[in-house]
Amino acid sequence: MEEMVRVAVDAMGGDHAPGELVKGAVDAVTMRKGILVLLVGQTAVIQEELAKYTYPKEQISIVEAPEVIETAEPPVMAIRRKKKSSIVVGMNLVKQGEADAFVSAGSSGAVLVGGQVIVGRIRGVERPPLAPLIPTEKGVSLLIDCGANVDARPTHLVQFAKMGSIYMENVLGVKKPKVAIVNIGAEEEKGNALVKETFPLLKNCPDIHFVGGIEAREIPHGGADVIVCEAFVGNVILKLYEGVSSTLISVVKQGMMGSVRGKIGGLLVKPALKQTLKGFDATEYGGAPLLGLSGLVVKTHGSAKAQEVTNSILQCVTFKEQQINDKIKQNIGTSSEEE
Amino acid sequence: MEEMVRVAVDAMGGDHAPGELVKGAVDAVTMRKGILVLLVGQTAVIQEELAKYTYPKEQISIVEAPEVIETAEPPVMAIRRKKKSSIVVGMNLVKQGEADAFVSAGSSGAVLVGGQVIVGRIRGVERPPLAPLIPTEKGVSLLIDCGANVDARPTHLVQFAKMGSIYMENVLGVKKPKVAIVNIGAEEEKGNALVKETFPLLKNCPDIHFVGGIEAREIPHGGADVIVCEAFVGNVILKLYEGVSSTLISVVKQGMMGSVRGKIGGLLVKPALKQTLKGFDATEYGGAPLLGLSGLVVKTHGSAKAQEVTNSILQCVTFKEQQINDKIKQNIGTSSEEE
Repeated sequence: MEEMVRVAVDAMGGDHAPGELVKGAVDAVTMRKGILVLLVGQTAVIQEELAKYTYPKEQISIVEAPEVIETAEPPVMAIRRKKKSSIVVGMNLVKQGEADAFVSAGSSGAVLVGGQVIVGRIRGVERPPLAPLIPTEKGVSLLIDCGANVDARPTHLVQFAKMGSIYMENVLGVKKPKVAIVNIGAEEEKGNALVKETFPLLKNCPDIHFVGGIEAREIPHGGADVIVCEAFVGNVILKLYEGVSSTLISVVKQGMMGSVRGKIGGLLVKPALKQTLKGFDATEYGGAPLLGLSGLVVKTHGSAKAQEVTNSILQCVTFKEQQINDKIKQNIGTSSEEE
Repeated sequence: MEEMVRVAVDAMGGDHAPGELVKGAVDAVTMRKGILVLLVGQTAVIQEELAKYTYPKEQISIVEAPEVIETAEPPVMAIRRKKKSSIVVGMNLVKQGEADAFVSAGSSGAVLVGGQVIVGRIRGVERPPLAPLIPTEKGVSLLIDCGANVDARPTHLVQFAKMGSIYMENVLGVKKPKVAIVNIGAEEEKGNALVKETFPLLKNCPDIHFVGGIEAREIPHGGADVIVCEAFVGNVILKLYEGVSSTLISVVKQGMMGSVRGKIGGLLVKPALKQTLKGFDATEYGGAPLLGLSGLVVKTHGSAKAQEVTNSILQCVTFKEQQINDKIKQNIGTSSEEE
């Protein structure tokens, strides 16, 4: 019998908690054996949700956590004070080896801080990056880092490139993933001080398949599998992606509604459009992993619904089965001369 | 009689040179009196293009410039060596007061370098920012800086905010333009070192209407009129805007072509879609001004067609009529304690 993968899920975090979180967990265990989901949160509330479904009871447990960290709370303070919050309790399960991974749709700041201070980093990892998948014409790319590590150093970016490559190769199954650094031109001599210093380090790194600089324009075209940047730039890319997509879709819809002809045409194209835009949506791959921690932490969108939660749980299973952390340990360990 | 505004146009730069550049100039002088366009480039080639049109002859002259700077050439070297290139000759016209402005669709790098080293900065301006207009749900916003000033300092960003406000108020007619700084959260305590240092300076600057930080997600929604950032981030925003828009439109079109129903619907929505996307296109406002120079330099897209060229010429007229540079001089001069 294969080993159970134990995934703790923050039942209290996100816009659709606890309903969609619990449903996502139920769907995951219904789809696959070999997963144990630990729903972390207020027991009575979770029980009430669980009562709506039929599912293999032995695959879901509840871990009591009476407190909830709100999105607006200052993260460091919240993590320190709310010891009985679902995020702190869930992270502690990972730290103590009672869970392999933790999935949360709650406060990004608290998840990032908690990952570092509670779960802790793998020895040798300087900073754990948050690495969401973003949709492209060709599939998805890993955008690393979008977390809280602003003002990163070149050596951090090299570690991001390595961890991102391991993730894309082993979790997404991309052979020899192409790594590129976000730059304002494709040439090596362009860029700000950070990029100029990092470029040769990436170029000379034997563990990755570095293809050079990538201009932001090429990212949606799928120009690389692992897109390396420091967190401020990554955050801008991630959020602008969402902003431009949603604005453009709403503008197109409004345009169609402006005439009878457009309205009829709009009704006809609706199914195709919906299908297409679904393909241009990275949430079907799961949430954003916080890499380089002694255990896996996955941050889903605050607006995550059951499907994204289910996919995130399945992503944790692949992460564990592929022994990503062992690979990160080996890889970061063997090239410590760059640190 | 009102004073003539003299606009030099690089007839040799861009993907559609000289044809679309010459056509854009002809259209501009046909639409408005009071403009003199100086077409800079190879006389014979320009004459051949001009021969295709009927237009007020006294409003267009040719200034010979036999050399052309290619997009791939290293900018500093190109500006230094090709003294007879259309960019160098055009910039010199502005420097010597023979033209009020220079419009080019040629090499961005050469335009940025030439603006600084040939035309020169207004006294007190530390760095001249390149400030394109980007489309939003509500109209357009000025994204300042997208130029070559990587690794900017806080005082530079404050000057960008001032110059951008003057431009939006006087050229675009936006009363009391809202200024925001690109950040990874709306709160003052968030951000990288540059943003944290710049935030209080903007907050305490009496000459602008500062509304705080803006997350990249809110930019396409038209969250502010003047979007301040350093050039690396600005470049990423500008290019990602183009990349995500073009990818999404191509994905939507492909989706429609996938079924007969979609194809028919696609034909019906086509006019509405075209109209809508035209509204979501900032080129109708002209090119990107390089602000803070003793004279105006406008960089249009390399792919600019006649309409963008015409709009850029008209933009130069407004710039001159509204005496933007006098306003910049006064404004930057009066608050030099921040420098």
